[in-house]
Amino acid sequence: MTSASAPALRVAMIGYAFMGAAHSQAWRTAGHVAELPLRPEMAVVVGRHAEAVAGAADRLGWQESAVDWQRVIERDDIDLVDICTPGDTHAEIALAALAAGKHVLCEKPLANTVAEAESMVAAAQRAPSLQAMVGFTYRRTPAVALARDLVADGTIGRVRQVRAQYLQDWLSDEQAPLTWRMDKEKAGSGALGDIGAHIIDAVEFVTGQRLTGVAGLTETFVKQRPIAADGPSGSIVGGAAGTGYGPVTVDDAAVFFGRLESGAIAAFEASRFALGRKNAMRFEINGTDGSLAFDFENMNVLEHYDARRPAEASGFTRILVTEPSHPYLSSWWPPGHGLGYEHGFTHQVIDLVRAIGAGTVARPSFADGLHVQRVLAAVEASSAAESRWQQIPVDSPIAEREN
Amino acid sequence: MTSASAPALRVAMIGYAFMGAAHSQAWRTAGHVAELPLRPEMAVVVGRHAEAVAGAADRLGWQESAVDWQRVIERDDIDLVDICTPGDTHAEIALAALAAGKHVLCEKPLANTVAEAESMVAAAQRAPSLQAMVGFTYRRTPAVALARDLVADGTIGRVRQVRAQYLQDWLSDEQAPLTWRMDKEKAGSGALGDIGAHIIDAVEFVTGQRLTGVAGLTETFVKQRPIAADGPSGSIVGGAAGTGYGPVTVDDAAVFFGRLESGAIAAFEASRFALGRKNAMRFEINGTDGSLAFDFENMNVLEHYDARRPAEASGFTRILVTEPSHPYLSSWWPPGHGLGYEHGFTHQVIDLVRAIGAGTVARPSFADGLHVQRVLAAVEASSAAESRWQQIPVDSPIAEREN
Amino acid sequence: MTSASAPALRVAMIGYAFMGAAHSQAWRTAGHVAELPLRPEMAVVVGRHAEAVAGAADRLGWQESAVDWQRVIERDDIDLVDICTPGDTHAEIALAALAAGKHVLCEKPLANTVAEAESMVAAAQRAPSLQAMVGFTYRRTPAVALARDLVADGTIGRVRQVRAQYLQDWLSDEQAPLTWRMDKEKAGSGALGDIGAHIIDAVEFVTGQRLTGVAGLTETFVKQRPIAADGPSGSIVGGAAGTGYGPVTVDDAAVFFGRLESGAIAAFEASRFALGRKNAMRFEINGTDGSLAFDFENMNVLEHYDARRPAEASGFTRILVTEPSHPYLSSWWPPGHGLGYEHGFTHQVIDLVRAIGAGTVARPSFADGLHVQRVLAAVEASSAAESRWQQIPVDSPIAEREN
Amino acid sequence: MTSASAPALRVAMIGYAFMGAAHSQAWRTAGHVAELPLRPEMAVVVGRHAEAVAGAADRLGWQESAVDWQRVIERDDIDLVDICTPGDTHAEIALAALAAGKHVLCEKPLANTVAEAESMVAAAQRAPSLQAMVGFTYRRTPAVALARDLVADGTIGRVRQVRAQYLQDWLSDEQAPLTWRMDKEKAGSGALGDIGAHIIDAVEFVTGQRLTGVAGLTETFVKQRPIAADGPSGSIVGGAAGTGYGPVTVDDAAVFFGRLESGAIAAFEASRFALGRKNAMRFEINGTDGSLAFDFENMNVLEHYDARRPAEASGFTRILVTEPSHPYLSSWWPPGHGLGYEHGFTHQVIDLVRAIGAGTVARPSFADGLHVQRVLAAVEASSAAESRWQQIPVDSPIAEREN
Repeated sequence: MTSASAPALRVAMIGYAFMGAAHSQAWRTAGHVAELPLRPEMAVVVGRHAEAVAGAADRLGWQESAVDWQRVIERDDIDLVDICTPGDTHAEIALAALAAGKHVLCEKPLANTVAEAESMVAAAQRAPSLQAMVGFTYRRTPAVALARDLVADGTIGRVRQVRAQYLQDWLSDEQAPLTWRMDKEKAGSGALGDIGAHIIDAVEFVTGQRLTGVAGLTETFVKQRPIAADGPSGSIVGGAAGTGYGPVTVDDAAVFFGRLESGAIAAFEASRFALGRKNAMRFEINGTDGSLAFDFENMNVLEHYDARRPAEASGFTRILVTEPSHPYLSSWWPPGHGLGYEHGFTHQVIDLVRAIGAGTVARPSFADGLHVQRVLAAVEASSAAESRWQQIPVDSPIAEREN
Repeated sequence: MTSASAPALRVAMIGYAFMGAAHSQAWRTAGHVAELPLRPEMAVVVGRHAEAVAGAADRLGWQESAVDWQRVIERDDIDLVDICTPGDTHAEIALAALAAGKHVLCEKPLANTVAEAESMVAAAQRAPSLQAMVGFTYRRTPAVALARDLVADGTIGRVRQVRAQYLQDWLSDEQAPLTWRMDKEKAGSGALGDIGAHIIDAVEFVTGQRLTGVAGLTETFVKQRPIAADGPSGSIVGGAAGTGYGPVTVDDAAVFFGRLESGAIAAFEASRFALGRKNAMRFEINGTDGSLAFDFENMNVLEHYDARRPAEASGFTRILVTEPSHPYLSSWWPPGHGLGYEHGFTHQVIDLVRAIGAGTVARPSFADGLHVQRVLAAVEASSAAESRWQQIPVDSPIAEREN
Repeated sequence: MTSASAPALRVAMIGYAFMGAAHSQAWRTAGHVAELPLRPEMAVVVGRHAEAVAGAADRLGWQESAVDWQRVIERDDIDLVDICTPGDTHAEIALAALAAGKHVLCEKPLANTVAEAESMVAAAQRAPSLQAMVGFTYRRTPAVALARDLVADGTIGRVRQVRAQYLQDWLSDEQAPLTWRMDKEKAGSGALGDIGAHIIDAVEFVTGQRLTGVAGLTETFVKQRPIAADGPSGSIVGGAAGTGYGPVTVDDAAVFFGRLESGAIAAFEASRFALGRKNAMRFEINGTDGSLAFDFENMNVLEHYDARRPAEASGFTRILVTEPSHPYLSSWWPPGHGLGYEHGFTHQVIDLVRAIGAGTVARPSFADGLHVQRVLAAVEASSAAESRWQQIPVDSPIAEREN
Repeated sequence: MTSASAPALRVAMIGYAFMGAAHSQAWRTAGHVAELPLRPEMAVVVGRHAEAVAGAADRLGWQESAVDWQRVIERDDIDLVDICTPGDTHAEIALAALAAGKHVLCEKPLANTVAEAESMVAAAQRAPSLQAMVGFTYRRTPAVALARDLVADGTIGRVRQVRAQYLQDWLSDEQAPLTWRMDKEKAGSGALGDIGAHIIDAVEFVTGQRLTGVAGLTETFVKQRPIAADGPSGSIVGGAAGTGYGPVTVDDAAVFFGRLESGAIAAFEASRFALGRKNAMRFEINGTDGSLAFDFENMNVLEHYDARRPAEASGFTRILVTEPSHPYLSSWWPPGHGLGYEHGFTHQVIDLVRAIGAGTVARPSFADGLHVQRVLAAVEASSAAESRWQQIPVDSPIAEREN
C-alpha cells in the first residue's frame, strides 16, 4: 500500500540461504500490504560465490549481486544492510555498516560472544541516527505481540511464572551431517543460541522484563557427525566431504531456569532432539489474574485464561489471532484466514521502515540482543560450574510499547 | 526461482477487493519461490472507478490500471485474464476473454446459474488451447492436497462416508449491513455458493468422485438488513445508504447430504452464523482402511487414522504438513514453519503457469466448476421441494492426478 | 453419603451385559457419593441362563439372581425394575413392572417401534405415582448438563443452528460378526436407534426444544456378516454359529437434518463406520450470542464461545467441567480430576432416587423417549421416501429445569 | 468379578479426607470389576473425632469407625492398613502396622524427610512377607502405564530427554486460607512434595530409570495467608481461626532439572499457581526413535510420535487409551468410553491385592518412595545452595515389569 512516490530505501542483503529467502520475501511484500514512509528496493544481494549469488539474485528478485560485502557497504546508493550470515561474521559486518552510515538489520543471535555483542552495541551508540536492529522475528507473530499487549495492559496481573520451550527434532538422526550450525567457531552455540535465544527474547518481550540470573545445563547427545558437502544449512565443516566424521562442538539441548526483574521465575528448554516437535516455540505465562499460552506450531492462536471470570465459566480461551484489531492483522485477510511463518519477517520490515521514517528506535535493538547474549553466556557458565546460579547484569531497560 | 530470462506471462486482473489483493500477492510471489516456465508480469488491474483502481495498482503493484475491461481483454500484450469480480459478471468476462484468445482464471463459484456455467464450459471447449480455470484455492492448501494424494494412493481404502462443513460467523450480527453478497442477483446464492461451493469442490477433489445426488435445506435467519455504504465486501445494494433496511435474498446457511459416484454418503453444512468459527472449512473422510480430518483453522495439519495398525497403537496422527516432501512445500520453509491462507493462491498461480507451459489442462477447470454449480442448484431445488432428493448429472469425469 | 438409616430402595435389574455392568457400578456407588433419600439395595439380577446370571450376581454384587423376570417383578420386596435388555423386550417388561407398582428405569431407545413406545407412555400415565424413566445417560455428563444450563440461562441467546454427530467405528471391519444389534427384530434399527437416539435426546435436552420435522438417509454398508457365537454384545442371530453369513437388517449409518420448535435447523449423523472415532458423541450449538461445543471423547470439557466479548478477546473457551459448582461435581473430586463414562450412570441413579424421594418426575421420561422414537421413525420414513421431509408431532413439552 | 467365596482381605483406613474418599471408592469397586484372589472388606475407618469418623464410615461404606489407630492396627481381624493421613504421621503408623504384621498402603509422599523414609524402608525390609506400597496412583492411569510399556518395549528407542510438569492453580488466590498443606511440619514441603513427587515417580516409572542428580529452585509467592477454620483440605494451622494471618512455610512452586541413570536429561516443574491449569500432570519423553506426550487433563489419551515412519506420514498419534488390550482396560467399558481420576485408585487396589495373592512385591514400594524422597531433598538442598547440582544416591534398582 506504499505509494510509488515514496522515497526509496535501498537494501543490501548479505547472505542468501534460508534466512536470505525469508528476508527477500519480506522486502518484496511489505510495501504492498502496508503503508510505509519509504519504498524498499531490493538493490543488491551479496555472497561469496559469484555464480551462486547471481542465481540467488535472479531467483529472489534482487536487482544486482556482488561478492565483496565491504565494497557494497561503502556504496552511496545503499541505505540499509541486512545481515543474514552465520554469527561469526555479524560483528564485523555490522560495525562496518554502521561506520559507513547504513542502517543495520542483523539476524539473531546478535553475535557469538558477549564481547562481540558489546562492540556492536557500542557502535550503535556511536550512530544514534541509524537503526541497529536484531532479527528476533517471533516477536512479530501476531499472537506473540498480542500476548505482550495483554501483559502490558495488566490483563493477567503481575507475572509470577513462565515456562518456555523451543523444540525441534532435525538433529535427532545421528547420521545427520555436520554443518556450520554444529561448529562453535561459526555458530557460537547450538540449540541454545539458535533457538534458545528466541525464547529468551520472546519471554523478555512479552513480560517486559529482563532475566537477572539463571542456572542451567547443556548437553551434546551426538558428539561426532559425518562430514557432508551440504547439510540443510550449507557449508562444509571440519574437513573435506566424505572423509569421515567431525566433532560437534556445540550443545544439542539446553535446560535452564531463571528469574525476571520482578522476581518471577522462568523455566526454559531448547532442543533439536525433541522428536515430533518440528518448530514448537512455545510459552506459558502465569500471572496473578490469568495466564497465556502459545505454541508456534499453531501460530495463529493465543490461549488466554482469565481468572477474573467465575470459576465455572473459566477455561483457556483459544483466541484466533486473525481479527483486524489484532497486531499486524490490518494488513492481511479476513478473520480465520491465518498467516504463516514468513509473515513475521514482513512485519519486521514494516516496523523497521516505519521506525526509520519516524526517527524512533526499532526494537529489538542491539542492546536487546546484547542482553540475550549475556543470558546465553550465563547458561553456558552455569552448566560449566555444576549448574550454579549466575547473575546477569541488566544494563538496558525494556521500554514500554516502543513498537 | 523463475529465471529472469523466462518469457513473460502478462496478466490483467479484473476486480481488486479482497480476492484481488490475494491474487496480487500470489502473482507477485509465485515466480520467486518456484521455477516457472513463464515469468508472470502484473500488467494491468481493472476497476470501474478510475481513481480507486489507480490507487489499487500503485498499492498492489500492477504496472497500469484501467476502467474498461473489454478494451483490456482485446490488448495484444495481455496473455491471461484473472477474474475477481462478483459472480454475475463472470460469464460475460470469461466468454469475452476466451474469445479474445486469453487464458482465464475465474474466481469461484464459476457463475450464478447453471446456464451461465454451461455457456462458460462451451466457450472453454471451443478454445482447447487456452486455460479456463476456476479458483477453488482450498485444493491447494498442502494438507488438502495431501489428503487427495492419500485417498488416491489407497491409504484409507474405499471411501464410505464424508462430512464437510464450512462455518463462518460474520453475518451473525443482525445489524451487519447488506452487501452484494446478500443479493441473489449479484451473488447467486449466500453461504451455499460462497463457502458451500468450496467444500463441494474439496470433497470431489479429495475423494476423486462427483456428487450424484443431494437433499438439502437452506435457511435465511435474518431477512432484512440495514443498507450501508460499504460492507466488508463493498458495494451498496437495494437502496441508498442510510435509507433503512433492504431484503436479504440469499441463504444464510445450508445443510445437505448426498451420494458420491461410488455410493459413499456425504453430509455438508455451510453457514455464516456459526459464532466462533471464523473460517472453519473442515472435512472428515472415512474409508475402509482409515480416515482423514482437516480444519482450515489449523491449516498446516492433516489428521490421519490408519486402521491397518494394531488397535492399541492407533489414533489420529496429527501430520504437520510442512515437510519438504509434502505438496507445494519444496517452495517454502523448513518443517514446522507453517504457511498461511494466501499461499493457496500462490500455489494456484504456480500450477496454472506450469500448465500453460506444459500445455496440460489446469484444474479445477470450468467443467469442474460447472459440476459444483449443478450441486448448488440441486440443493436449492431440494430445499424448495420439501428436501426431496435431486439427481445430479455427471457429464465430466474427474481425471486422476492431473495436477 | 447416604445415611445407613435411610429407607431401602430395592432394585431388580433385568439383563447384565455391558449396560448391566454400567448400571451395577452406578447402583453400588451412588449412595456413597451423594446424599440420597433412599438407600439403593442391589436386590436381584435377572437373566435367561441360571448359571450365567448367578455368576453375574456374584461378580457385580447383586444379592440374588433369578431367571424369571415376571416373578421377580411381582415380588413385594422389589421397588424398582431396571431394564437393561435389548429393545424388543422393553415394552413387555416395562408394562408389567408398572402394572405391578414398580418404578421403572428403562435403557434406551425406549422401544423398537413408535407403537410400543406409545403403549409404554400410556402405561406410565396410568401410574402417575411411579417413575418411568428412560436411560439417556449422556444428559448426565456434567459438560452436557452445563451446556443445557447455559442455553436455559440465555448465555448463548436464541439457538439458530445445531450440528450433532455420534461416530463410532466398531463395525467398520466387514468380518465383524453378526449380533443382535444388527438384527432389526431385536434392535429396531442400527446406528440410528443405538447412538443416533442419544444425540437426538441430547440436542432436545440441551436446547430445550423438540424436533418438529426431519429429512434423512440411512445406509447399510455391509449387507452380510459372519454368524458367530458371541459378538461384542452377545446373542447369536439368524442361524447357528459358524454356519456362514447372515443378513444385516439395520442401518450402519444415518444422516439427517431437521428443525427444532423455534425454527432452528439441526444436522445429525450417526455412524458405526467412522474409523478412528471410538465414541465421538459430539455437538455444536450456535445461538445469537454464542456457541457451545462438546465431544465425549474429551468428556470433561465444554467449549463456549461468548460473542458478547470483544472480538479480539474472543475464542472458544475450554471449560474444564470439574469445578464443584458444575453439575454433579459436588459429589466428586477437586478441579481437574476428571470423571469417566460410568459416572453418567451414577448421576442417573442419584437423580432418579431423588425424584422418587421428592415425588417429582424423573426425566427423561417415557414421554421424552417416545418423542425420540418418533424422530427415529421419521428419519426412516424419509429415507424410504427419497429423503422427503417428515413432520413430527410434538405431544409433550420439554419442561424447564425439571432435573 | 471377584468370587464371593474368595478369602477376605480386611482393610483399616486411617484418615478420611479427599484421599480417604478416593481410596474408599477403590476398595468398594475393585472386586466387582476385576478377578481378585482376595475379597476386600472395608472393615474400619479411623479418625481423631469420633462423631466425624462415624459419619464418614456411614457415608463411605466402612463397617466400623474408630479413633485409636494403634488399637486398630493391633486387631487380629485387620489384614491391611491404608494410610491416608498427612505426611508427618506416615512413618509412625507404617512402622507400627508392619510391626503388627499388616500389609501397608501409604499415601505419597512416603514421608516428610529422608530419614523417616529410610526408617520405613528398613521396617519393610524386616517384614519381607508384607506389602509396603506407596500410593503414586498416576502410574496406574492407563495412558501412563501404556507409556511405560512403550518405553520398555523399545518403541521410542533410548530416552534422551524428558520434560514433566505438574501444574495446578488452587493457591493462586492470595486470600486462600492456610491449611496443613502449607505447613512444613505437617506436609514436609509444598508443591514440590505434593505434586512434584508425582512427576518424579511418573518419570522414573515410565523411563525405568532413577534420577541421579538435580539442580533446582523453589519459591514461595505468598508468604502469609489468612488463618481459617477449614481450608479445602481441612485442619487449622498456626493459630485460632479468624485470628489473622499465619506464615506459609513451604514452597508454592519448584523448578528443577536432572539426569537419569542413562545420562538422559529431564526438566521438571511443579506449581500451585499456574492459573487455568487445574490438574495438568503432564510429561513428554523424547527417545532416539520417537516421543510420547501425556497430560492428565485429557487423561484417556497418550500421544506417540513414531520416528521410524516416513517423515511425510508422521506426527503425534493421539491414542485413545480405551482399547481392551490397553493396561487395566479389560476391567472396564468399550473403546472410547473413558475413565476418570478415581480409576487409578481402583487399579492400585487391584494390583496390590493381586500382589498379596501372588506373593510378589507391589510397586511402587517404600524403596521407590524413598528414592523420590531423596530427589525432593536434593531439590531443596540445591535451591538453598545457589542451585548447585546435587548428586542423588541410587540404592535400589527399578526392576522391569514387576507390575
